[in-house]
Amino acid sequence: MSYMEIGYTSAQQFCVDVFAGHGFSRDESKLITDVLLRADLWGIESHGIQRLVRYHSEILSGMVSIGAQPQIVLQSPVSAVIDAQGAMGQLVSASAMNLAIEKAQQSGIGMIAVRDSNHYGIAGYYAEMAVNADLMGVCMTNTEAIGVPVLGKKAMLGTNPIALGFPADPINFIYDASTTVAPRGKVEVYSKNDKPLPEGWAVDTSGHDTTDSAALLHNIIHKLGGGIAPLGGTSEITGGHKGYGLGIIVDLFTGILSGGATSNYVNTRPGKSDITHFFMAVDYGIFGDKPAAKARLSAFLGELRESPKADGQERIYTHGEKEAEMMRQRKSLGTLPVNEKTWQEMQDIANQQKLDFGRYF
Amino acid sequence: MSYMEIGYTSAQQFCVDVFAGHGFSRDESKLITDVLLRADLWGIESHGIQRLVRYHSEILSGMVSIGAQPQIVLQSPVSAVIDAQGAMGQLVSASAMNLAIEKAQQSGIGMIAVRDSNHYGIAGYYAEMAVNADLMGVCMTNTEAIGVPVLGKKAMLGTNPIALGFPADPINFIYDASTTVAPRGKVEVYSKNDKPLPEGWAVDTSGHDTTDSAALLHNIIHKLGGGIAPLGGTSEITGGHKGYGLGIIVDLFTGILSGGATSNYVNTRPGKSDITHFFMAVDYGIFGDKPAAKARLSAFLGELRESPKADGQERIYTHGEKEAEMMRQRKSLGTLPVNEKTWQEMQDIANQQKLDFGRYF
Repeated sequence: MSYMEIGYTSAQQFCVDVFAGHGFSRDESKLITDVLLRADLWGIESHGIQRLVRYHSEILSGMVSIGAQPQIVLQSPVSAVIDAQGAMGQLVSASAMNLAIEKAQQSGIGMIAVRDSNHYGIAGYYAEMAVNADLMGVCMTNTEAIGVPVLGKKAMLGTNPIALGFPADPINFIYDASTTVAPRGKVEVYSKNDKPLPEGWAVDTSGHDTTDSAALLHNIIHKLGGGIAPLGGTSEITGGHKGYGLGIIVDLFTGILSGGATSNYVNTRPGKSDITHFFMAVDYGIFGDKPAAKARLSAFLGELRESPKADGQERIYTHGEKEAEMMRQRKSLGTLPVNEKTWQEMQDIANQQKLDFGRYF
Repeated sequence: MSYMEIGYTSAQQFCVDVFAGHGFSRDESKLITDVLLRADLWGIESHGIQRLVRYHSEILSGMVSIGAQPQIVLQSPVSAVIDAQGAMGQLVSASAMNLAIEKAQQSGIGMIAVRDSNHYGIAGYYAEMAVNADLMGVCMTNTEAIGVPVLGKKAMLGTNPIALGFPADPINFIYDASTTVAPRGKVEVYSKNDKPLPEGWAVDTSGHDTTDSAALLHNIIHKLGGGIAPLGGTSEITGGHKGYGLGIIVDLFTGILSGGATSNYVNTRPGKSDITHFFMAVDYGIFGDKPAAKARLSAFLGELRESPKADGQERIYTHGEKEAEMMRQRKSLGTLPVNEKTWQEMQDIANQQKLDFGRYF
């Protein structure tokens, strides 16, 4: 698939106008766009502007409710449960993390569980919100079931990512990873390139290991069985039971604590995605002097990066480093790469939304 | 290696007398023994009575301080930092989890970071303490560095396990897993049996993949380089960067928040192990009706267990199930399996402690 470079500011204006055209306020549209394009700036194409078409259609279908008024249904000084009422995931998630941040600033810790939401983009965005307030931030979400339990053959768990951010110099620690061995987007890339999947990534409809990316996607889409392996792979020997358990833990914090759906029920009710999230902020000052803690983490991350490299390797990374470097590079260039399919989808959206595509690009 | 069955009650009495003989009170000795033998009851031989010799020698060497008075150096309604002053890990850990439980009962959440401690046994024991108080429990510890970063060749991270417990019927959810692909104990079993390690478990002194279990142990013990891979394996393709990041996260909660040592500094100061821990209890009632949440989790775990099995498989497990079944079986038999080496070590300890071994077994 071929790629082209588009202007970052133009992409921003275009996305804001698309969302505003759907009826979101300018501020809401800017926030949704910021989450969306942050993924592209960080080099996470799967969650970037290529998902605009998905949001566009979820809004059109009414699955995402434009005028939703998320309700705090229960709260304590350290916690809250929010019923998102089908709101755009990015909007309720940013306000939920802001509430977690407020509670952390007042009580030391804030934990917020959110139900009846929608896809919220990259988990790392919300973890970074807490980091920008000089707090630890944690964020989890469930997603449609695509992952199989160890020894199973039916998708029962989402990719269920966990993100955790903590301030550090020169680059904040931002961990953001699915608890499956790989996300669906990567399987799609293998399939598009007619390449077999790496060993241990997936099982077929019988529960046997498979490397057939096209068949896997077909089976997943048509719910014929099979799915992606947990982090650690398809067997206990390689630790698959550990990733499988981490997937359950994410559903515990999101689906169970929020009183919403676990991932095996996501996207099963007509007109509802029923995605659930969890956000936590911790004022790490409750454990001692903040600059000292930040300095200790910065030193530790530096020691990891500077530790001896495997033969033939030049760098060891810590989490958030690749993304920060990519963002610096793309912001200085002022452009983002967009694949031809996404480019076509953007033009179709412009036509449907009666936007003059040539005015942006 | 051959195994024999020994009486559970006799093993209990023997261990209590060993610890009491070292100068711990009867209550302290019973608690340490309870953590130790719970591992055997759960079928986790590596952390059970076969570790008695290690604790015995750490106490003799003075690394474990018998009269240590752990100090709360900082606290808030939701948190505390404890300086263990070199205490026996099990003792400071049980009191730290009790403090987390008290804080959770009063404020909804309790987070406790502990520094200058020692090995504490199985993480799941402390998570279960919170579950027994009808709370969510989380527990982490760092350990001596034995795990390599992705693209690295020097052990910089411990096995750094994460445990999480939550009440459920008919069996509580108790997750307890290292963030490396395997713990050191499993490598030792492969080596004892002259078997090659599974692919993706470890790297040699050059940072290349290795399956040579004996060489790996030699290199680890003599700190010659190489080590165990993170959960996800040695490469980013199989998700090794995810497990590597989880290892960092455990050091963040333990070493960094406690103001103690990160795992690359564990067991580097003479006479100190400098192990650090983290404990969290959450009264999940702050998120809504507790029986309803427990019922939701119980249903979800049941759905996972009942989901279609891979061809040739008869069961899908959820975490804590195997351990609960093993404990029921061993308690009903009233015996524990002990390998011949451990049996010999127990006799040596009895001689050193002037205990009449024949009085117990």
